[in-house]
Amino acid sequence: MSRNWKGLAVLMRTPMRAAASQGKQLPSPTPFHPIPTNASSAGDREEISASRQFAVAYVKERMQASISIPTERFESLDANLEEFSKGYLSLPQEGRRDLLHELARNYDVNRMRVRQLMQQYLNLGFPSNAEDNAIDNEQSGSSLHDEALLASCYRMERNLRDVLRPMYGVLFERLNAYDGGLKILAVLRADVVSLLEKDNLPSLRALDSYLKEKLITWLSPAALQLHQITWDDPASLLEKIVTYEAVHPIRSLQDLRRRLSIGRRCFGYFHPAIPGEPLIFIEVALLKEVAKAIQDVLWDDPPIPEHEAICALFYSISSTQPGLSGVNLGKFLIKRVIELVKREKPNVMVFATLSPIPGYMQWLLSKLTSQLKFTELDTENTRNLSESDSSSTFKESIFFPEEEMLVRESGSDLTDGKSGIEILQKLLSSPNNEWIKSDCLLNALRPPLMRLCARYLLKEKKRGKALDPVANFHLQNGAIIERINWMADQSEKGLSQSAGIMVNYIYRLEKIEENAQSYFSCGQINASPNVHQLLEAKL
Amino acid sequence: MSRNWKGLAVLMRTPMRAAASQGKQLPSPTPFHPIPTNASSAGDREEISASRQFAVAYVKERMQASISIPTERFESLDANLEEFSKGYLSLPQEGRRDLLHELARNYDVNRMRVRQLMQQYLNLGFPSNAEDNAIDNEQSGSSLHDEALLASCYRMERNLRDVLRPMYGVLFERLNAYDGGLKILAVLRADVVSLLEKDNLPSLRALDSYLKEKLITWLSPAALQLHQITWDDPASLLEKIVTYEAVHPIRSLQDLRRRLSIGRRCFGYFHPAIPGEPLIFIEVALLKEVAKAIQDVLWDDPPIPEHEAICALFYSISSTQPGLSGVNLGKFLIKRVIELVKREKPNVMVFATLSPIPGYMQWLLSKLTSQLKFTELDTENTRNLSESDSSSTFKESIFFPEEEMLVRESGSDLTDGKSGIEILQKLLSSPNNEWIKSDCLLNALRPPLMRLCARYLLKEKKRGKALDPVANFHLQNGAIIERINWMADQSEKGLSQSAGIMVNYIYRLEKIEENAQSYFSCGQINASPNVHQLLEAKL
Repeated sequence: MSRNWKGLAVLMRTPMRAAASQGKQLPSPTPFHPIPTNASSAGDREEISASRQFAVAYVKERMQASISIPTERFESLDANLEEFSKGYLSLPQEGRRDLLHELARNYDVNRMRVRQLMQQYLNLGFPSNAEDNAIDNEQSGSSLHDEALLASCYRMERNLRDVLRPMYGVLFERLNAYDGGLKILAVLRADVVSLLEKDNLPSLRALDSYLKEKLITWLSPAALQLHQITWDDPASLLEKIVTYEAVHPIRSLQDLRRRLSIGRRCFGYFHPAIPGEPLIFIEVALLKEVAKAIQDVLWDDPPIPEHEAICALFYSISSTQPGLSGVNLGKFLIKRVIELVKREKPNVMVFATLSPIPGYMQWLLSKLTSQLKFTELDTENTRNLSESDSSSTFKESIFFPEEEMLVRESGSDLTDGKSGIEILQKLLSSPNNEWIKSDCLLNALRPPLMRLCARYLLKEKKRGKALDPVANFHLQNGAIIERINWMADQSEKGLSQSAGIMVNYIYRLEKIEENAQSYFSCGQINASPNVHQLLEAKL
Repeated sequence: MSRNWKGLAVLMRTPMRAAASQGKQLPSPTPFHPIPTNASSAGDREEISASRQFAVAYVKERMQASISIPTERFESLDANLEEFSKGYLSLPQEGRRDLLHELARNYDVNRMRVRQLMQQYLNLGFPSNAEDNAIDNEQSGSSLHDEALLASCYRMERNLRDVLRPMYGVLFERLNAYDGGLKILAVLRADVVSLLEKDNLPSLRALDSYLKEKLITWLSPAALQLHQITWDDPASLLEKIVTYEAVHPIRSLQDLRRRLSIGRRCFGYFHPAIPGEPLIFIEVALLKEVAKAIQDVLWDDPPIPEHEAICALFYSISSTQPGLSGVNLGKFLIKRVIELVKREKPNVMVFATLSPIPGYMQWLLSKLTSQLKFTELDTENTRNLSESDSSSTFKESIFFPEEEMLVRESGSDLTDGKSGIEILQKLLSSPNNEWIKSDCLLNALRPPLMRLCARYLLKEKKRGKALDPVANFHLQNGAIIERINWMADQSEKGLSQSAGIMVNYIYRLEKIEENAQSYFSCGQINASPNVHQLLEAKL
């Protein structure tokens, strides 16, 4: 144990920081994000742990064998699965890409066979429900022909299911049954997901969705174990928390300890086939009210005694397996955690989050750029932008005129003779975020940035769902957008992601199902009146 | 805890005995048996625990709803699954039969839809491997048409998989994801299995094999937890061991304690979704040699200190879930246990079993009956039976002439003027097993009964596999038939199952895969020379 602790201490001093700063080198998971941008790095990391380097050809052979070996040769099968796993982890990205493409293209379904079976099936008659009589008069042998027909229908349907299962389905099934195989499947999926961003090919998409479906049934929430992570847990586990905390990085051993002690809770979901590391974990703070800024949560000493708390604030939720993106474990985790906290602290009535808005700035800056393009094309003077809205279908109001004026006046040298949009673009894309140092700029920017944020959260959609991944996550779990908070996270990350704005989502237990349903069925984004008002808000 | 213990003690005094004697009332599981004869009783037992009685119609509604409710209405879904589970367990056998037939017949695949999709699929062209170029020259947009075709192939194949999934597949998936659902699925399967013995209908068979496949993937051995069961485990768990021990019933708290202490081991396989009860467990004795009789194993005090042991004898393996028949967990359990014991006791070299032969007497008695029929038809004198074999294809030699003579002479009044076969039949079917009380009968019967037992184990097959379920279990795991032991289990059960004969199977680690493979591929039953010799053995 003491050795472990030394390990963790060391880890906190150097490697973790290093890793944290390197970002991509670590599987720093993108919380909630349906498709982690750096999924492959999960693989990169495993690589290091792999003992020796394998040749791609060799790993492919082991893959081939792992699919074709008959089940009764269980030892050879295990040996092959082990070699494949080790080998896959040892492969550099290029090798994995090569192998995954081969798996996706050459180990899918046998279309010849599928077509044969379909023909046979279609040539069968259409069975009446032969059995009804059979049962009613205890199989008096009536309509035996129909029963035989029905029997062959069932048989053929079973065969069709088998032959429609891609060959790589066998590999996945066998890895799932093999010790440590589920972890390999997660790494493999992470690689597929990131590979899809480069090579978006039908075969890869098919493999991805097939594997995702399988992971969903294999990671049944009923088989997941909820564990409250405390300072008494093994260092090897706490190390994982430090590594994977994606929302508000853990800076020191002290910081870690605080997150696990009085006034806070940390819960992880564990699967027996991936022991010693949570698949996803959530950090909770017990508060007197819903916090407006992250500083109100990341305190050093609890501001209130626990028994005074009436709000449980979820301030961080991180999934550790990029390969499980799209497998919504967070939904079940939040449900279970709410139940647990209610049982432990009956006074806690409010369950809310203080969440980042990871997509806001990215969306806004691209919108500003496109607006500038239109404006150039436009004969009109940019000062009349807002009035000329109607004239151009592509142009959208970014500012109200008064707002723009204020921005242009407030921004000292930055702003000479430029349009509000240009100024805004320049301010927001300047690396060192100078703008937050000037009070009058802050005042000038607050109304438009808050309004545009409300617009981003309430109006911007992708396939009928909220564009922002965190918003989509909480909305589909049945939360509502309660409040948008100005200057809630002034960390570099917070400013570059969302101009320092954060949002509170609230889980109203009696309404979550209703909310989730309206969101699913008609993409309705549920928000408090205050947030809706922001859309129209002027100075 | 103390309360628990009182509970267990009470349990040991009365209910357990009662239950044990009642047999069918308890889910006394049939170890290894691919189709437990009393599977339904698992349900019977649950019934008791169900709080109130539900109407079949109501349970069917909940079933219907559990299938049709959209996922995002997770609360209603959970509520329905709970009501369905409670309701199902509360139903009497008739109600369950009714419900299962409805599920099997009215919730299978939508054949109309299947045929439509197949037609569409067949009308699609046959895709070339469009992507090869696409990848090689980084998607230069070459052969875009083919790629589109391929894409729609994958899409349709996915849809076909969906529509070929029976509707009850949705119910199963959802139960698997629901707390306590896996247990319900096991009970449900147990009922299906026993129902099939009465109503062997295509729809039920299809449902059974579909559910079995699902249970196999959901009960991945990688997710199972091996736990050594000791006297320190909760009474609630030990109670289960007492309840489910199927091979050598546990008679007292003392007996239970002995099986968990020095010289013995007990290991169970647990699944997180079915907490607090093993799915299967095995009892091991540490010995100086492979035991020939069960008395040599069920000792009160260890005959040798553990460090002198060189043999680990598996003397009992019981599966607790009749609904998991055909899901071979025992195979993985035995592998894991062998590894564990080897690590703990490096001196242990021999891994063997002392196993019952549950099907022997049943097989032999039916053979005797049929032989008697043939003999009646036969003009010849039964005394010449053995000589006349060649003349009648149906007749088989039961006795060698000398043997028959000996039997007829030894059997005092029982045997006047009857044929050896008649005598044998009478002796073996007499309820109180008089025959073992006469030494000369024992001597007379030993050679034929041992030879016929060897024949039953080595020659009698069902679908190319050993007819005896226990033999089939160990042979497919790669064991060989090492030795057949006379008067190895003189308990009432032992005598009526197998005339008191038991068999040692041996697991030779370096050979198990080879053995398993030859058994699977060509049904070869591997046995020691001694056992083969028994086939020819005379007096």
